[in-house]
Amino acid sequence: MIALGENQYGKSRVRVMKVERCADRHEVFEWNVDVWLKGDFTACFEDGDNSHVLPTDTMKNTIYSTARASKASTIEEFAIELATHFITTQPQVNEASANIKATLWRHIDAGRQRHPTAFVQTGPARETVTATYPRGEAVSVTSGFTDMAILKTANSAFAGYLRDRLTTLKETHDRLLGTLATAEWTYAAPGLDYAALRTSITDSLLNAFAQHESLSVQQTLFAMGKAALEAVPEITEIRLQMPNKHCNLVDLSAFDQDNPNHIFVPTDEPHGSIEACVRREV
Amino acid sequence: MIALGENQYGKSRVRVMKVERCADRHEVFEWNVDVWLKGDFTACFEDGDNSHVLPTDTMKNTIYSTARASKASTIEEFAIELATHFITTQPQVNEASANIKATLWRHIDAGRQRHPTAFVQTGPARETVTATYPRGEAVSVTSGFTDMAILKTANSAFAGYLRDRLTTLKETHDRLLGTLATAEWTYAAPGLDYAALRTSITDSLLNAFAQHESLSVQQTLFAMGKAALEAVPEITEIRLQMPNKHCNLVDLSAFDQDNPNHIFVPTDEPHGSIEACVRREV
Amino acid sequence: MIALGENQYGKSRVRVMKVERCADRHEVFEWNVDVWLKGDFTACFEDGDNSHVLPTDTMKNTIYSTARASKASTIEEFAIELATHFITTQPQVNEASANIKATLWRHIDAGRQRHPTAFVQTGPARETVTATYPRGEAVSVTSGFTDMAILKTANSAFAGYLRDRLTTLKETHDRLLGTLATAEWTYAAPGLDYAALRTSITDSLLNAFAQHESLSVQQTLFAMGKAALEAVPEITEIRLQMPNKHCNLVDLSAFDQDNPNHIFVPTDEPHGSIEACVRREV
Amino acid sequence: MIALGENQYGKSRVRVMKVERCADRHEVFEWNVDVWLKGDFTACFEDGDNSHVLPTDTMKNTIYSTARASKASTIEEFAIELATHFITTQPQVNEASANIKATLWRHIDAGRQRHPTAFVQTGPARETVTATYPRGEAVSVTSGFTDMAILKTANSAFAGYLRDRLTTLKETHDRLLGTLATAEWTYAAPGLDYAALRTSITDSLLNAFAQHESLSVQQTLFAMGKAALEAVPEITEIRLQMPNKHCNLVDLSAFDQDNPNHIFVPTDEPHGSIEACVRREV
Repeated sequence: MIALGENQYGKSRVRVMKVERCADRHEVFEWNVDVWLKGDFTACFEDGDNSHVLPTDTMKNTIYSTARASKASTIEEFAIELATHFITTQPQVNEASANIKATLWRHIDAGRQRHPTAFVQTGPARETVTATYPRGEAVSVTSGFTDMAILKTANSAFAGYLRDRLTTLKETHDRLLGTLATAEWTYAAPGLDYAALRTSITDSLLNAFAQHESLSVQQTLFAMGKAALEAVPEITEIRLQMPNKHCNLVDLSAFDQDNPNHIFVPTDEPHGSIEACVRREV
Repeated sequence: MIALGENQYGKSRVRVMKVERCADRHEVFEWNVDVWLKGDFTACFEDGDNSHVLPTDTMKNTIYSTARASKASTIEEFAIELATHFITTQPQVNEASANIKATLWRHIDAGRQRHPTAFVQTGPARETVTATYPRGEAVSVTSGFTDMAILKTANSAFAGYLRDRLTTLKETHDRLLGTLATAEWTYAAPGLDYAALRTSITDSLLNAFAQHESLSVQQTLFAMGKAALEAVPEITEIRLQMPNKHCNLVDLSAFDQDNPNHIFVPTDEPHGSIEACVRREV
Repeated sequence: MIALGENQYGKSRVRVMKVERCADRHEVFEWNVDVWLKGDFTACFEDGDNSHVLPTDTMKNTIYSTARASKASTIEEFAIELATHFITTQPQVNEASANIKATLWRHIDAGRQRHPTAFVQTGPARETVTATYPRGEAVSVTSGFTDMAILKTANSAFAGYLRDRLTTLKETHDRLLGTLATAEWTYAAPGLDYAALRTSITDSLLNAFAQHESLSVQQTLFAMGKAALEAVPEITEIRLQMPNKHCNLVDLSAFDQDNPNHIFVPTDEPHGSIEACVRREV
Repeated sequence: MIALGENQYGKSRVRVMKVERCADRHEVFEWNVDVWLKGDFTACFEDGDNSHVLPTDTMKNTIYSTARASKASTIEEFAIELATHFITTQPQVNEASANIKATLWRHIDAGRQRHPTAFVQTGPARETVTATYPRGEAVSVTSGFTDMAILKTANSAFAGYLRDRLTTLKETHDRLLGTLATAEWTYAAPGLDYAALRTSITDSLLNAFAQHESLSVQQTLFAMGKAALEAVPEITEIRLQMPNKHCNLVDLSAFDQDNPNHIFVPTDEPHGSIEACVRREV
């Protein structure tokens, strides 16, 4: 017999820009929202019975309407609101989740002060969150960032590794280490000061990356995760993806030039891939 | 205590083009390969001990060297070869996997016949595979495709759905249904005729999509998965992602023009998202 | 004094999908349209006087409305219609142009025949056109394609080139030649059978690419342009961009393997760039 | 007769990262370089005679070698060096040009001070330059930026425009004005302090954008260009591209909610397109 297995549906890439209009200045929030619902939708898939299917167009409307009514100033609060809305209003749903990516804007410096209503986008890093609400349980919040391009030009080595007959890599005690990092950390409880915690965690990660005497990307990744967990007791675990975006030293000897780690070719492909979770054990 | 959790590492986006040089013609295979290894790499992450770490550069070399020696004419066979190589030669590894995406080329029609050594790329669909080899178990093979853009201009409705106070969508009995489909099916056993099976499965999916009297994307997805499972006993389950890339009917009434489903605006965002697994139950 | 120089404005990325509903089958046209207007808009730029500025939103409406009324079955005819509309109705405009890119769909083969109302997208190549209408002159039509990925695995050499002290490239008499070609050809007069001519020109270009005994990308480009001009007297010139997307031979000697042009690494960057116009001289 | 028309060739997307190693800190320059040569290459195109063709691979080597020897700390100086190199060493070349895009990095703030050897990428804006050297003339330098995402949430109107029967746009006196600006300015003479001038020009442009009481994108564009020309006498003209990335106000009336310019949908397509040159007249 052929039957339906795991399934989910929702609305993706719903973009919303919220302008908070204070007396003396505006603030801008640009969010890209996905909503996902799980539940028993067998009748829809197998029989074309849509009677329990909330249209994804309604989910889009819900995001806009909720944004208008919301007091949320962080993506975490807004994601929790959305997941809660769907669990509360849709009895046919067993689990609702919302993912948000924030594009960041800062006030333009104009005439030596921040202009109150003009903005320039910053990046390439973007802030992320996933709030997941399984019916009857607590909502869980996983925050993070994506596309954080960082680079060390000193204190990075890679040596002493395993060699087989296909190994041609030369050991190095002074290389460039660049990555486009993605991070995701999970909070132990809801209702926190998400903006302040995000700042602490991001600062810890960047500081550890900068300070680390790196023997491998793996070791640096672990040091970063450990630093964040030590600095912020509110999180239970952090997952880091740190692709090794190789910067290859150029061989200039054919042109009678030396190259003592000055000229590199940065590359996008192929790249090393290193992913790990670091967690607090109890 | 803070400790390492789940982790993996590997090499990604290793591109390789293999030219098979037969007497009367060439064949071209263009593959984009990722390799991932799992095992106990705690000493590397926590202490910077690289003695059990095979460099990702070596994985890249392995892909090139294996491609030269290989007789594989499908991505399935090549992915199995790679996963097997790492499990066989790397005792510190518990699980090795290889993902491949193939870019497709066909011979150019020149002077009414296929030119033997000139090619034009086809697309946008690409073929995919993941071979996963957990030590001590059998290698599993999941094949599929990605970026298959398909469209129905008739026989697609969406009505009878759940409404709440935020629902504004109008029912329709004649809409466009377009998607950029991703499929992944799992074989029950290795050592099959992967090329022939891929053709059968893809044909079944496209045929079911074309023929279906659709009451929803969900129902069409299920019909497609069911058709593939019925046509090809060698697969045990199939997962389909079918984002609903909305084509919105343009309202031309302000210009005194009707629009009986002739002029649409195709959109990329927001889009509906529908994902499900369809499987053979025993 | 500071003054306004050259300027233009318009609407870009207006997507429109037109479904032609014949008795026995549908046809689908997916077009991405840009419209540009030039004229004396100094008062708008310098003084904020919008009284001669047709909103770009109106241009979008015009594209939709024109698509509904149009009998055009080619992007050439539709681009001419649009450019003509703006020159005819907007006296403040000195030159109107329309650029269109078509995404291509073909009927799905279902049960050994073309399904009348189900489609699969083809690519990656897309068809293009620019119609430019300077007031008081004739409309000019430049058609072409973009993203045509083509590859030769034989009959391509590069040798006998200029060497200086920074030249390290080895001569080759058997290399892969791959490119992502862009072509643009200009018609001598309007009112032609654009679909048939496009087929002839594209076939000539691909046939010449396939058949050419190539001594350089430059020579192949010229041979292609010459073939198209010889085959189709209706065009006066053709411009080709043929970036050399290098496929680098992998050196496997460290692994005691030969590599007689079997295993290559295809690359996106850096790439050679070759661009030229080939024209009929009178 | 069929003959070769305008043509050029070169190397594109040559990426180079230069690490300047000072005693107390490092600086990082990441440049993406294109080189183009023009000259009489008819024999190559028409006859396959490569004897006057410097390989594009040599151009790549030249970029690396020149980067090593160079003292340039700006993309302007490096582009001039490259263009000069090719004009000086290649007598067959009539015009050499170099385009560079810089990806920007800043020192990571670690423990309240800038870490000397760790960096985070900033963006999305990137700095650009084109140096063009026609043999026998002076080298010309055009600098700029691309992908500068800026947004005004106040002081932007669009009203009083031309209406025709296809115009449905409503006038607004308070809209969001967002763009992804591209700028290019031309220096009157070489040998300037390019870094300082770039800062002045960019500040002028952003300040004018922020302060402007905008009646249209066109008027704001002109005000920005004028401000830059007034602030920096060293430039003769500036070209600005300012696509109007519409933020559409969401209609929430169906849900009994008002929306006094709080909730918008930012869009990428379709977009308005406004381009103009502003120049000093003599």
